[in-house]
Amino acid sequence: MSIVARRKVLGGIGAGLAAGALGGASAWTQGKRKLGYAVVGLGSYATQQIMPRLAQCEFAELRALVSGMPEKLEKFGAQYGIPRTHWYDYRGYDRIRDNPDIDLVYVVLPNSMHAEYSIRASQAGKHVLCEKPMAVSAAECEAMIAAARAARRKLMIGYRCHFERYNLHAVELVRSGFAGRPTLITSEHGFYARPGQWRLDRALSGGGSLMDIGIYSLNAARYLSGEEPVEISAMESTDRDDERFRTVEDRIDWQMRFPSGAIANCVSSYSSGHNAFRVTGNRGWVELEPATSYAGHRMRTREGGRINDVTLPAPAKDQFVAQLDHLAESVLSGTALRASGEEGLRDMRLIEAIYRSARERRAITLA
Amino acid sequence: MSIVARRKVLGGIGAGLAAGALGGASAWTQGKRKLGYAVVGLGSYATQQIMPRLAQCEFAELRALVSGMPEKLEKFGAQYGIPRTHWYDYRGYDRIRDNPDIDLVYVVLPNSMHAEYSIRASQAGKHVLCEKPMAVSAAECEAMIAAARAARRKLMIGYRCHFERYNLHAVELVRSGFAGRPTLITSEHGFYARPGQWRLDRALSGGGSLMDIGIYSLNAARYLSGEEPVEISAMESTDRDDERFRTVEDRIDWQMRFPSGAIANCVSSYSSGHNAFRVTGNRGWVELEPATSYAGHRMRTREGGRINDVTLPAPAKDQFVAQLDHLAESVLSGTALRASGEEGLRDMRLIEAIYRSARERRAITLA
Repeated sequence: MSIVARRKVLGGIGAGLAAGALGGASAWTQGKRKLGYAVVGLGSYATQQIMPRLAQCEFAELRALVSGMPEKLEKFGAQYGIPRTHWYDYRGYDRIRDNPDIDLVYVVLPNSMHAEYSIRASQAGKHVLCEKPMAVSAAECEAMIAAARAARRKLMIGYRCHFERYNLHAVELVRSGFAGRPTLITSEHGFYARPGQWRLDRALSGGGSLMDIGIYSLNAARYLSGEEPVEISAMESTDRDDERFRTVEDRIDWQMRFPSGAIANCVSSYSSGHNAFRVTGNRGWVELEPATSYAGHRMRTREGGRINDVTLPAPAKDQFVAQLDHLAESVLSGTALRASGEEGLRDMRLIEAIYRSARERRAITLA
Repeated sequence: MSIVARRKVLGGIGAGLAAGALGGASAWTQGKRKLGYAVVGLGSYATQQIMPRLAQCEFAELRALVSGMPEKLEKFGAQYGIPRTHWYDYRGYDRIRDNPDIDLVYVVLPNSMHAEYSIRASQAGKHVLCEKPMAVSAAECEAMIAAARAARRKLMIGYRCHFERYNLHAVELVRSGFAGRPTLITSEHGFYARPGQWRLDRALSGGGSLMDIGIYSLNAARYLSGEEPVEISAMESTDRDDERFRTVEDRIDWQMRFPSGAIANCVSSYSSGHNAFRVTGNRGWVELEPATSYAGHRMRTREGGRINDVTLPAPAKDQFVAQLDHLAESVLSGTALRASGEEGLRDMRLIEAIYRSARERRAITLA
């Protein structure tokens, strides 16, 4: 997508959320039934963040569960009133094809399973929302896009920050020229990864902090700049004596140069807490810290030498609800997705370039 | 200097300033005369920052002026009561050798003149305080060190932040383990360089933002980490169509890896305002913004999920006075310098590595 086209889409995000915040369904959705989600993978993110939010959706609701653990199906089936006919394990997963109550499939599995379960959902005739990172390689992302296209179904990636009011406002401020011409973007994400989680097993995660929390630094640098990078230079720092890092990296920081000349300094860490970005231009800056958290965002801006705290009104839908509704609304109305498979593929290609740059200790020029 | 030795020195900085803040001269300085400074180069930094501070010094005072412009000698000679016998132009500069009132020479000239005027001062038997960057190449720095050593005189570089209370407190907090093991240092410095200044003429400046404001990012990353980097990777961004950047770079950002595994993300810019650093460890962070300004420093720390503002009591001597007195005190007492020529040389070698990395688009491994 060209920069201009991308800017249009981002402009549309803000406009869309603003309209949504005013409340009420538009004409084409009035009187229509909600679409049904199957949630695939009943880990903590699915059960603690996603499933409670589905009850708040305007255009969608929870209708089916997919898990390899019968006790989870029992527990959450009972909790959410999902009948046994709408429970699936991974072997029986393809039978969702025969369940007309399922319109949408949300893949919330470990990264290395994203491609397979997204593709099988597309082949079953369902629209897909897949968590980020989209998969563990650009090749897998391309296969997912091809499968959705062949099935004529939508494929969306779970970039919830594209639906979060502070992130959207930051983008609007930058686009409006508040900070002047952007020259530097810092985007820093990290947390202390406790041992014993699937994220530390490369076979499941496909990589370390970059495939997990670092993708927030990457994606934010792209939506804040409104540009695609042309050069990447990365530096990894991993203590291989730390048992957590036998197969995945701890920290990887990288610089990206954009066509405008702006540079992004990005951070990804499994050993220290970071959750912030700042866009500095020749006239000031816009900052969020925390930037991509579930809640509690804090915005500061600097203009004319003064630092201001910015508080936004509460939105009608939080970022989770807005994201879940977006796919349903897009299916119902036929409008374009904000965070399509192509968006996920772009990040994955950059992730591959970041790893390559760190490995080869040289700058990578991007096509 | 080994890391351990360096840590000792930095520890000593804080201890020294604390003792100074308690006020009063120590036994060896009681009843002794002040030492006399000649200020070389009467630009805005010398006349607005340095010369007024010399009147506040405990161990030094202004005794001579060196300038190529007679009207400046007239003006500041009258203002500070310096007799004509103590005015020098650049041709007559070496005659300072014959003036016993001059003990110390402060070189505040454009960067490309630092080496020559420092070496001539050493050869005239004077102790030297030279502004940073120490010179425009590591080879020049080595010549300066050799000249001072041959003359058995001291050579100090004007790293005023080594005498600034917030910077010293930040170092103390980091060393004390406040933030845990440091993992990331961000160090960002920049300002909008107006056209028509000597700093934009490579013949005088030796380089762009890195040789000017960027050295603050570099030096802070070193004193905050207490380590010397082992790898550098840099990315430059300069609009060569901007008339300001015909001979020097605008922006150059770089990453440095330290032996501990910590990484520093550093920024240097002539197109946007930056003045901040943050040290993040596995338990929290310490931040200054502004970090290296003349005044108005602001410290924040994060510990246990809480962000705190930290205000320090006013010191007995500001950073300028403390720096000017430090060289005099070191000469009088024979104690070691905090910011010696070796410190300036280390930065210059790293600056050369940063430029090389950006030019060759690859990481540079340091000896």
